Amino acid sequence: MSHTVAVSGASGYAGGEVLRLLIAHPEVEIGAITAHSNAGERLGALQPHLHALADRVLSETTAEVLSGHDVVFLALPHGASGALAAELESRSPGTLVIDAGADHRLESAQAWEQFYGSPHAGTWPYGLPELPGQRRQLEGASRIAVPGCYPTTCLLALAPGFTAGLLEAQDVVIVAATGTSGAGKSLKPHLLGSEVMGSMSPYGVGGGHRHTPEIEQGLSQAAGEPVTVSFTPTLAPMPRGILATATARIKPGVDAGRVRSAWEQAYAAEAFVHVLPEGQWPSTQSVLGSNHVVMQLAVDAHAGRVIVSAALDNLTKGTAGGAIQSMNLALGLAEQTGLNQQGTAP
Amino acid sequence: MSHTVAVSGASGYAGGEVLRLLIAHPEVEIGAITAHSNAGERLGALQPHLHALADRVLSETTAEVLSGHDVVFLALPHGASGALAAELESRSPGTLVIDAGADHRLESAQAWEQFYGSPHAGTWPYGLPELPGQRRQLEGASRIAVPGCYPTTCLLALAPGFTAGLLEAQDVVIVAATGTSGAGKSLKPHLLGSEVMGSMSPYGVGGGHRHTPEIEQGLSQAAGEPVTVSFTPTLAPMPRGILATATARIKPGVDAGRVRSAWEQAYAAEAFVHVLPEGQWPSTQSVLGSNHVVMQLAVDAHAGRVIVSAALDNLTKGTAGGAIQSMNLALGLAEQTGLNQQGTAP
Amino acid sequence: MSHTVAVSGASGYAGGEVLRLLIAHPEVEIGAITAHSNAGERLGALQPHLHALADRVLSETTAEVLSGHDVVFLALPHGASGALAAELESRSPGTLVIDAGADHRLESAQAWEQFYGSPHAGTWPYGLPELPGQRRQLEGASRIAVPGCYPTTCLLALAPGFTAGLLEAQDVVIVAATGTSGAGKSLKPHLLGSEVMGSMSPYGVGGGHRHTPEIEQGLSQAAGEPVTVSFTPTLAPMPRGILATATARIKPGVDAGRVRSAWEQAYAAEAFVHVLPEGQWPSTQSVLGSNHVVMQLAVDAHAGRVIVSAALDNLTKGTAGGAIQSMNLALGLAEQTGLNQQGTAP
Amino acid sequence: MSHTVAVSGASGYAGGEVLRLLIAHPEVEIGAITAHSNAGERLGALQPHLHALADRVLSETTAEVLSGHDVVFLALPHGASGALAAELESRSPGTLVIDAGADHRLESAQAWEQFYGSPHAGTWPYGLPELPGQRRQLEGASRIAVPGCYPTTCLLALAPGFTAGLLEAQDVVIVAATGTSGAGKSLKPHLLGSEVMGSMSPYGVGGGHRHTPEIEQGLSQAAGEPVTVSFTPTLAPMPRGILATATARIKPGVDAGRVRSAWEQAYAAEAFVHVLPEGQWPSTQSVLGSNHVVMQLAVDAHAGRVIVSAALDNLTKGTAGGAIQSMNLALGLAEQTGLNQQGTAP
Repeated sequence: MSHTVAVSGASGYAGGEVLRLLIAHPEVEIGAITAHSNAGERLGALQPHLHALADRVLSETTAEVLSGHDVVFLALPHGASGALAAELESRSPGTLVIDAGADHRLESAQAWEQFYGSPHAGTWPYGLPELPGQRRQLEGASRIAVPGCYPTTCLLALAPGFTAGLLEAQDVVIVAATGTSGAGKSLKPHLLGSEVMGSMSPYGVGGGHRHTPEIEQGLSQAAGEPVTVSFTPTLAPMPRGILATATARIKPGVDAGRVRSAWEQAYAAEAFVHVLPEGQWPSTQSVLGSNHVVMQLAVDAHAGRVIVSAALDNLTKGTAGGAIQSMNLALGLAEQTGLNQQGTAP
Repeated sequence: MSHTVAVSGASGYAGGEVLRLLIAHPEVEIGAITAHSNAGERLGALQPHLHALADRVLSETTAEVLSGHDVVFLALPHGASGALAAELESRSPGTLVIDAGADHRLESAQAWEQFYGSPHAGTWPYGLPELPGQRRQLEGASRIAVPGCYPTTCLLALAPGFTAGLLEAQDVVIVAATGTSGAGKSLKPHLLGSEVMGSMSPYGVGGGHRHTPEIEQGLSQAAGEPVTVSFTPTLAPMPRGILATATARIKPGVDAGRVRSAWEQAYAAEAFVHVLPEGQWPSTQSVLGSNHVVMQLAVDAHAGRVIVSAALDNLTKGTAGGAIQSMNLALGLAEQTGLNQQGTAP
Repeated sequence: MSHTVAVSGASGYAGGEVLRLLIAHPEVEIGAITAHSNAGERLGALQPHLHALADRVLSETTAEVLSGHDVVFLALPHGASGALAAELESRSPGTLVIDAGADHRLESAQAWEQFYGSPHAGTWPYGLPELPGQRRQLEGASRIAVPGCYPTTCLLALAPGFTAGLLEAQDVVIVAATGTSGAGKSLKPHLLGSEVMGSMSPYGVGGGHRHTPEIEQGLSQAAGEPVTVSFTPTLAPMPRGILATATARIKPGVDAGRVRSAWEQAYAAEAFVHVLPEGQWPSTQSVLGSNHVVMQLAVDAHAGRVIVSAALDNLTKGTAGGAIQSMNLALGLAEQTGLNQQGTAP
Repeated sequence: MSHTVAVSGASGYAGGEVLRLLIAHPEVEIGAITAHSNAGERLGALQPHLHALADRVLSETTAEVLSGHDVVFLALPHGASGALAAELESRSPGTLVIDAGADHRLESAQAWEQFYGSPHAGTWPYGLPELPGQRRQLEGASRIAVPGCYPTTCLLALAPGFTAGLLEAQDVVIVAATGTSGAGKSLKPHLLGSEVMGSMSPYGVGGGHRHTPEIEQGLSQAAGEPVTVSFTPTLAPMPRGILATATARIKPGVDAGRVRSAWEQAYAAEAFVHVLPEGQWPSTQSVLGSNHVVMQLAVDAHAGRVIVSAALDNLTKGTAGGAIQSMNLALGLAEQTGLNQQGTAP
């Protein structure tokens, strides 16, 4: 039986990717497609790669338009989904609401207010089923907060070591590179093609990046103690992809074999997360457009650290793919339904 | 009922793309995967984006290994498929053989010998169902020659005007840009990333390009008279995609409306070929990884020419997607089976 | 003796490139640097690559600020330089004014009005010294119209054949690819890095491109008769560079040797324009950041056409380098002064 | 008075960049240009961007050919310069020899043998004049070891903090991205344009990278105690540029103002190294083709770390520009001679 699905924010990159995956999903029927400033336009003019929906016209993003569907995806600027979700709750109580924005990810209202400067909208089940215990929370859920693309990468990279008690909670350092779609479709000079091609640059350096508390929240849960992270994001000359280099100090007496084994066991049963054979390194190209995550790790005995290198597609596993994987769990579908895309390479 | 399929040349770009699409195809089961110098290696080491087949090991490309499947894809260097196809015919007479190489595309043995310098292997049904009368030839076929990626683009761009008798057979000029995967995985200095990024360059200028006779063959069949083409390919700094700018002189008295109408009618019923609404221009990004073709056209009254701009993915519709579309026709499956991928953008 | 130079439009790509080259020019002293909406800002914030001028603050673009210099470069949106030039003439009569914009390039007021929709500002000496007779017009000039980057490429590509009377005036077809800096720094969605990387697309197809009349003007002067051009520009995923593929029908009885010889003789004495040895093809990377132009040509006897492939840097020889080369001639300096940059490759 | 200069390894990227800069250098005359497997070929065929030297033919790399020049640049594979330098010493005792390879950088013979597996050739003055006390060692030197491109970036990024005694010697973590030219011109599959465009990947993860001992050597000298570094290099989809994210723990009681001030003072008098104004972040594009280094730093009080982001061009300041800057010091020329190129942007 097919589920009806509505997608808001359909003119943006996250909304477009949700639609791309839904078109290939065998158990859903795409209902309302909405946007804000682009309401009334043909989808084909805004997302010319979505050939199957080229002639659909965008509706206005309102609770009225979105209500009545089995599932609603919110792909809105942060701060916008709280009120809309509340109105949806009253109008359309049985609807599964999946928020691809940041509003419902953080458990700490204080952290939310510090980094986003607005009242906290609440905390929803966190859509990263590969974290310990998380899959169960998503089965049958009616509200899902899709993790940020950076936190997805960083948590998958380091959680196994913290869960297994192998890593020290201090001095975690993560440097990640993202493709430009991670910065969205906004018209800013530094996002022009002329500026980004052939160039790498950092942004939000020094602890101010909004993804830091979300990364620390997940790693602290895995560790069972507060984890402190130095996180630096950089912008790379590619449209999609995240490559994270995540390092942490290994506790005294832990050897390389035990480290490797912790990661391999953590993901042995996972369909989308792969610890590569030794000697093979991840590349973002190998996961482009897919829900897969590839990683490799090495123990640097000299520096006393594990270094994990993890790659995923920020729009797929980092956003829309993770959202649909969570939707599958919430609806009782097989977790991989509609997500059999391989990477598109070269 | 599922069909068993074998893929040769699986370590290259064309073979990898055939596999990527077959993984998503609901009516096939992937059997032998073969290569030449990489036989014995894990597919995951050579095509790390094909997660579903990462642990498969490549066999040697021989008729023995390939025989016994319902379908065999040949993705081999030119000149290599003739003998192998002959041996397959005797060993495995019922097998559908689909040649993604050049060997069986040209009808003129003389043109083959002039451009390729070896004996002509014969002519097979041409796997471009959108050309007039071509779809019927593929239904139930047991041998299919997959068109080259440039000819696919150029023929789809100009055939409607020749079929409708609107264009002059002389002075056709086509300039096309291709991504680097069009040049294959061979280790040549000018294909290094350091050389191609940020750079455009032509190659094979002046009529010597091997795709010219194939383009002229198809346009001449559409026109019913010999068509002469000046074709210049260029290499663009992107992994995939072809953008062709194809121009031809309009016959006296033909107006712009009649021209536009010829193209729109030619593709009105096609699932994969789209004449865009006026004012919207094609981009290769919008078809990345998909079997779709987008085009736009304009009549330049000043120069007396129609200019058609057409974009497709050289590895998908230009090679592997076109091959699978033709396979579907030959096997009696719905033509779009397994080809519902949208473009991967941005 | 050093010449004082002012540069307007210094926050844009053309103005930035003029400054980059002036910094390396041994005979000039950089005076006023002006902009419009960015007046009052540090140049280092807008053009971070111009380390030598990082702490200079932009002035407002007015005739008052610009007057009193020996040379003024105008790098303004089209339509803006006419009035400013007139005011400069009265305030600062001895100043050499070099217009990098379109306003003073076209000789035909009618063509200007048709393509730009505003009154024609007049015609200035055309800053392309490699065209026959043009160098003399620039020596000692007090006003110079810098050619467009596309016309520079196309005229250098085809002028030798028309000057030598070898080409037919009808059915010239030119397809050119440009890097995104050719579209300027304006904030348009299709110029975002996410949209342009990995993608090629055409624009202004069908004769409507504003550079067509400028190309036809120059080729007609070379031919001594009206030349008609079909010109299609495309946008390539690179910041800089133009690769033009220019083709024209060869007159009956003209052989390949005579064709090659015409081009080689035309540029034998030129410092910046190079016909490459046979077998070597141009690439935009090989001229990046330099004032050089490289080209190769082939006669396609089958199609009866010459095909010329020419590459230059749209911001250097296509704009700022050409402007400074012309300035040198006007000031009586050696033509190559300050222009000894080689291409920056890889 | 002009100095004669010979360049070996002229067919590679480092050798090509040395030549590019020497062409613009007012105090040198380019003598022998040599290569190994490409000896006998036109430079124009191998380095088509070096228009000024296009017709020069490469000689064989031998001490005989190189001797008799005032300066010899060695841009050879590691392990190749030791014997050649020894032979040059006897044949041409007064010649300044500048080794752009790794052979003479490390002071520890043991570290050399561990990472390179061959006998240590000795230690030469280290060509990074911006390190404390280093400039004096280069003035009048007759042998110079050009630092590696990664060490140049990492040492400039962190040395000021160690020199000022503000940073802890343990737990330094550096993640750096380099353009593909950093991997040289070798024909390896993972360096093909099809593989690198749109993709990021790590390499040499886990302490095994050969640049680690060189980075530790320089930071330890600055700190006056042994510094341990976790260094991870990644490959970015661009031809040139390095962006390093370097982090270290701040000693207790050190505040952000003191940190910033240490960096600003360290480089206040430097012509090529720039601490950007607060709020402005470095990009590799802004230094492309120039000898400049830009950096920004932030104190992350939460994590107790300073994070320095530094960008340079791996072939210019990272190799050839640094080599020529050192040559200027050795020859008694002004340090900036011939190095006034600004970044080439966009």
